[in-house]
Amino acid sequence: MTLYIIGLGLEGAASIQQRGLVAIKQCSSVFIETYTSGSRDNLIDDIEKLTGKNILQVTREKVEQSRIILNSARTTDTAFLVQGDALTATTHNQLRFDALGEGITVEVMENASIITAVPGYLGLEVYKMGQVVSLPYVSEKFFPRSPYDKIISNMERGLHTLTLLDITETGYMSVNEACDILRKMNDQFGRKLDLETLKVAVVHAYGTRFLSARYGVLGKLCSLKYTENPSTLVIPGKLDYNEQEFISHFNV
Amino acid sequence: MTLYIIGLGLEGAASIQQRGLVAIKQCSSVFIETYTSGSRDNLIDDIEKLTGKNILQVTREKVEQSRIILNSARTTDTAFLVQGDALTATTHNQLRFDALGEGITVEVMENASIITAVPGYLGLEVYKMGQVVSLPYVSEKFFPRSPYDKIISNMERGLHTLTLLDITETGYMSVNEACDILRKMNDQFGRKLDLETLKVAVVHAYGTRFLSARYGVLGKLCSLKYTENPSTLVIPGKLDYNEQEFISHFNV
Repeated sequence: MTLYIIGLGLEGAASIQQRGLVAIKQCSSVFIETYTSGSRDNLIDDIEKLTGKNILQVTREKVEQSRIILNSARTTDTAFLVQGDALTATTHNQLRFDALGEGITVEVMENASIITAVPGYLGLEVYKMGQVVSLPYVSEKFFPRSPYDKIISNMERGLHTLTLLDITETGYMSVNEACDILRKMNDQFGRKLDLETLKVAVVHAYGTRFLSARYGVLGKLCSLKYTENPSTLVIPGKLDYNEQEFISHFNV
Repeated sequence: MTLYIIGLGLEGAASIQQRGLVAIKQCSSVFIETYTSGSRDNLIDDIEKLTGKNILQVTREKVEQSRIILNSARTTDTAFLVQGDALTATTHNQLRFDALGEGITVEVMENASIITAVPGYLGLEVYKMGQVVSLPYVSEKFFPRSPYDKIISNMERGLHTLTLLDITETGYMSVNEACDILRKMNDQFGRKLDLETLKVAVVHAYGTRFLSARYGVLGKLCSLKYTENPSTLVIPGKLDYNEQEFISHFNV
């Protein structure tokens, strides 16, 4: 039997690939994980309508144990649906190699990822992206230095930093919360950034019809109110001529 | 009228998204560019069969001038098909912003990219990827230092280097040619790498049924003969436990 690990891309049912649709329709069991990127409105309903299949939602714990999916794939063709690209989360690769280890055939179907989509949307060169940073909620007990150091290190090399904002069970980190965390980190770790005048881009609501971006100095962007979700921050490094021209379309 | 810039993903017609298929079918003019990643066997035929549309192939020069596509999009819904992701090439973003500047509506449809697919396939964390490197053919007159410096810089930070091999009109750079170029660069720029014992991964023939990977020391990988194309090199930085476990499935 075959386990199909299928990336859904960024637009829900509309961004399922031809081969993904064929695979889902031929599978007896179809699972979806919704915890790595939140759940879009109507996502499961839309895919059920498109494919005629009943889709089972799995929690983080179930994916990590992964027994339920592997047991299914041992006896019947099984699809595991992932928002965005198929294998960007370690747990999904764990599932894949566990399946291979049990003699189950695995077929991976990649799809669009926020990692390449956001630079492309802003007109930034994917070749000039530095290490991706995840910005977490901080507290007195949890105040990591590594996101800050990675931003500084990318900037020193002239590279752009894609900064993913945290997701919790209660929702997405807002741009205003991200500003607050960046300011706290700057205070804590030596004020290496002039945050008020630092130029940044914010991309809102990727994968929805509300997709938009704003580019300007952080001091100004942080003073705005935001309702769009989720958002992604990009801190540009050295912009070449084309990049400068493209990103300026999003000036605020 | 609308210009649809549509990423085809990595598997030809099979990886077109649902929304891409809908868009192509409603367009009067459909263009495809095949110069940034070579042309897959039967790609155009397959898409023509799937969509019922006549597809016009554009050369690099035509995309860069882009007049033919913009003229089409001013009077009729027009699709521009791109292998891989939609906006990873500067020329495609230029086309997009030129269109917006002329008042043409643009809709972008992202898709899978080799940039995220290769790390995922090898089981490497996309968050630990350093700057992407393109390895060019070198000569006495053209012997750039930057690809080498980028590899060293990524390694110093413990990051993995995705190394794309050059494409020319006559074909893809082979793994053996890449080995030869890396050795020449190492000799020229201070032998900072012990190439014979450096562990690297090679991914072959992405997007075809011949997809495979090999992981081992460069000295051994370079002594093998390769027939698969195209190939992509990854020079891992510091591997964490999961990454080490996953990539070892490809040991040679």
